[in-house]
Amino acid sequence: MSSSAVSNEKHNEKPKTAIVPTRADNYPEWYLKVIDAADLAENSDVRGCMVIKPWGYALWENIQRGLDAMFKATGHVNAYFPLFIPLSFLEKEAAHVEGFAKECAVVTHSRLITVDGKLVPDPKSKLEEPLIVRPTSETIIGASFAKWVKSYRDLPLLINQWANVVRWEMRTRLFLRTAEFLWQEGHTAHATSEEAVEETMKMLGVYAEFAEQWMAMPVIQGEKTAGERFPGAVQTFCIEAMMQDRKALQAGTSHFLGQNFAKASGIEFQDDKGALVHAWTTSWGVSTRLIGGMIMTHSDDDGLICPPRLAPEQIVIIPVIQKPEDRDRVLTYCKALEKELEATIYAGSPVRVHVDARDMRGGDKAWQWIKKGAPIRLEVGPRDIDNDSVFMGRRDKGPKEKTGVTRAAFVAGVATTLQEIQDALFARALAFRDQHTKQIDTKEEFYAYFADPPKKKQSDPTPIHAGFALTHFNGDPALETKIKEDLKVTVRCIPLAPGEPGTCPFTGQPSAKRVVWAKSY
Amino acid sequence: MSSSAVSNEKHNEKPKTAIVPTRADNYPEWYLKVIDAADLAENSDVRGCMVIKPWGYALWENIQRGLDAMFKATGHVNAYFPLFIPLSFLEKEAAHVEGFAKECAVVTHSRLITVDGKLVPDPKSKLEEPLIVRPTSETIIGASFAKWVKSYRDLPLLINQWANVVRWEMRTRLFLRTAEFLWQEGHTAHATSEEAVEETMKMLGVYAEFAEQWMAMPVIQGEKTAGERFPGAVQTFCIEAMMQDRKALQAGTSHFLGQNFAKASGIEFQDDKGALVHAWTTSWGVSTRLIGGMIMTHSDDDGLICPPRLAPEQIVIIPVIQKPEDRDRVLTYCKALEKELEATIYAGSPVRVHVDARDMRGGDKAWQWIKKGAPIRLEVGPRDIDNDSVFMGRRDKGPKEKTGVTRAAFVAGVATTLQEIQDALFARALAFRDQHTKQIDTKEEFYAYFADPPKKKQSDPTPIHAGFALTHFNGDPALETKIKEDLKVTVRCIPLAPGEPGTCPFTGQPSAKRVVWAKSY
Repeated sequence: MSSSAVSNEKHNEKPKTAIVPTRADNYPEWYLKVIDAADLAENSDVRGCMVIKPWGYALWENIQRGLDAMFKATGHVNAYFPLFIPLSFLEKEAAHVEGFAKECAVVTHSRLITVDGKLVPDPKSKLEEPLIVRPTSETIIGASFAKWVKSYRDLPLLINQWANVVRWEMRTRLFLRTAEFLWQEGHTAHATSEEAVEETMKMLGVYAEFAEQWMAMPVIQGEKTAGERFPGAVQTFCIEAMMQDRKALQAGTSHFLGQNFAKASGIEFQDDKGALVHAWTTSWGVSTRLIGGMIMTHSDDDGLICPPRLAPEQIVIIPVIQKPEDRDRVLTYCKALEKELEATIYAGSPVRVHVDARDMRGGDKAWQWIKKGAPIRLEVGPRDIDNDSVFMGRRDKGPKEKTGVTRAAFVAGVATTLQEIQDALFARALAFRDQHTKQIDTKEEFYAYFADPPKKKQSDPTPIHAGFALTHFNGDPALETKIKEDLKVTVRCIPLAPGEPGTCPFTGQPSAKRVVWAKSY
Repeated sequence: MSSSAVSNEKHNEKPKTAIVPTRADNYPEWYLKVIDAADLAENSDVRGCMVIKPWGYALWENIQRGLDAMFKATGHVNAYFPLFIPLSFLEKEAAHVEGFAKECAVVTHSRLITVDGKLVPDPKSKLEEPLIVRPTSETIIGASFAKWVKSYRDLPLLINQWANVVRWEMRTRLFLRTAEFLWQEGHTAHATSEEAVEETMKMLGVYAEFAEQWMAMPVIQGEKTAGERFPGAVQTFCIEAMMQDRKALQAGTSHFLGQNFAKASGIEFQDDKGALVHAWTTSWGVSTRLIGGMIMTHSDDDGLICPPRLAPEQIVIIPVIQKPEDRDRVLTYCKALEKELEATIYAGSPVRVHVDARDMRGGDKAWQWIKKGAPIRLEVGPRDIDNDSVFMGRRDKGPKEKTGVTRAAFVAGVATTLQEIQDALFARALAFRDQHTKQIDTKEEFYAYFADPPKKKQSDPTPIHAGFALTHFNGDPALETKIKEDLKVTVRCIPLAPGEPGTCPFTGQPSAKRVVWAKSY
């Protein structure tokens, strides 16, 4: 049992979990406690900006490594564009400025001076044209593309950028919504509409594959309705995942921008017949929000659970040393085991192993690694060494469910075991989503499904939500707005997967297919 | 001959080089032309900010990969801290604010509104406390360290951050000095002064090793004089390299910050005797400036030369297709060769190979890759295939110096050949530095050495400089200032390497060792 659980026990509360409150008791608070217990991130002294701590940043590094290889395998190259965007650039695309001018960091001066012992912006350094810190880079990258693209031979242009962006959000939440966040933004230009649409869908597929294969997070691929579209896009596609409070998380988006941004930025080329035409562009992005999605998909009331492919350390070896004279022998054995494991390959990379040789109680160590979500814990003491075996705990199973296994068998099967955990997490998340996804065909049932259960006290936490509803929809934006106002429920996406036509239960009008309705982050 | 050279020839100018002007004719202009011809970067529409294009960014990715592994091997972990720094944080360290308040991007508003059809900062969104875009992160990271460090058991804290920073430079130059640049900044906290000094020197050593082993750029490790010290540091150490105009480039710095920033940020811990004491901190950084150093160390009048360990592509295969019916056969052979080469390892990584199958003249392709600095070019045509051989050009040799070699021999020796090129570049750069480094023992000779040769016309380019002078110095800051005013020459560093005591030729006073004097970037 964790030290925090132990200390709670002294107060006669007897919590059975390492994280208090549990998901059922107070899901939003549980989320923050998991982040804290795993040492992933914290709020900074700068409004809305987070500090990503080493264990959290290592998750991001693994996300970057996985996605970057997939981007390169699909022909993209990385580049880097300015942090600042002149106001006049933002103004070029009408819908875009409407969407992004509302919340941004505006740079107005370029120097500080001391006045009456206080540092203030130097009035003489006021910029002629204010700059905004990029909330997204369509306009500034468009300006470069306009210079680079002259002929159809220069197309397609397939660029990605890893960067920080800033959106001045009022209500922030670690990883899910922060003023500054880290992301990648792909920006591509094509000679035809068809090619740009193909790229948009290809990258949506890359995101879905990454979410499912690397993050073990099942997603629904679909298109956004007009109300949820990226400002300036012709079509926005997304991957949507169900969190354990049964709300939807938009985990990645891919936009077909048509010629809107090409016209705004002047991206023109001579086609093969010599005519000057505007290019067709796309953009697509995922962010540190994925870490929030990973946390809420897999973690339990004992803390974080990292899917093995993302785990900063996949195996943690905990030397069990009761007597000082055993210390050298146990540590030597553990170090040799670490080396042997690091020489094995899982999912294309050397297995990541850590020996926790800190001078503290083995039980406390084990609980720390449970809370940090390490997929496999190995406890190794003198008796295990005598038997040339290890004592294994898997994070996808209960904390007390540990099994002895010979060292040779463990090493030989380590990649299989890690993949088993990866698959188990995916299967569990998929079953959870299926369990909480319902086909609903009447307005009454729909409203009942999404109605919040009554709270006893105003201060009670937000209750766990119903889940996803698969319900027909005639596509009317006014109806979607009404439902959003009534229930805080929106169309998360119109799934790409084939579906049967039917009748919109709200209007009685025909509907092409069921769409996914849910509350969302 | 390059296409630009060819087109120049038509104008009867007969340049013999792909880059015009040459280094000798106009070094600053040559530098920009090399960047342009290699497609590394360009100025953006945002004052002082550059766009790093794919070939330039791939160099940065390789620098990151190499350094990041070295940081991790020395026990450091990555994390991420806010882009913005509250003014009050900057004010905490007196020397620091003096150094960085002068040139920075100040964020004063958080929203834009449209007034008279024009987008302007919304007066209602004015921030209570302005934020500055980080020029360096000692103060904002210090605030986190102050929370994280409580006991001596929490130390050392060894953190690195990969990030963008902004310094509002007035005179910018691609890679060497830009308003926004990319860098890494290490920040560490220690329980004792000795440990912090040891860390400072260890990371200086890492930088020197990276510069010499990866970049093939010889550097002098040394300490900065007080005048060149980082604002707020107790001691600043650096690596200094000689560029081909014989000016010095500060390529990396490592700072021992003493307790200055720990006191400013409140980083305190209980030592093993229970006393509350301030930690000892360090910081160290290198930036995209390294790419400027790489360009100016190795490139020649035909363009960029990438040292193999940094080259985005180490080998470029150019199919030579004279008749359309040969096309499939030649491409198939080239693709197979690419695959075979990619299966070989150089310097710990798979060899990076590219087949340039574009539909254009082979000679033009070859010149493009010369200008982009690819270490090895292989030309493969039907006759080479018949002989199972390749025609190899090395970028460290003349463009016409090509040798036939059997495919088997080339593949078997590819790692050796790449290392030969790497070593040759280092040896050439070292010989160049030695040739232009002079021990000078009199004031007269010193002033003559650094005097600019007279220009014929005011518009003539800056002449190539003399080089480094190894000259004794009594350490007087006023004297250093005088020499800087007279000659634009400064002490680049007091070398760490042992030296003999002697006499300062400017004052006749004793000097502990010769120091490195030079003009610098």
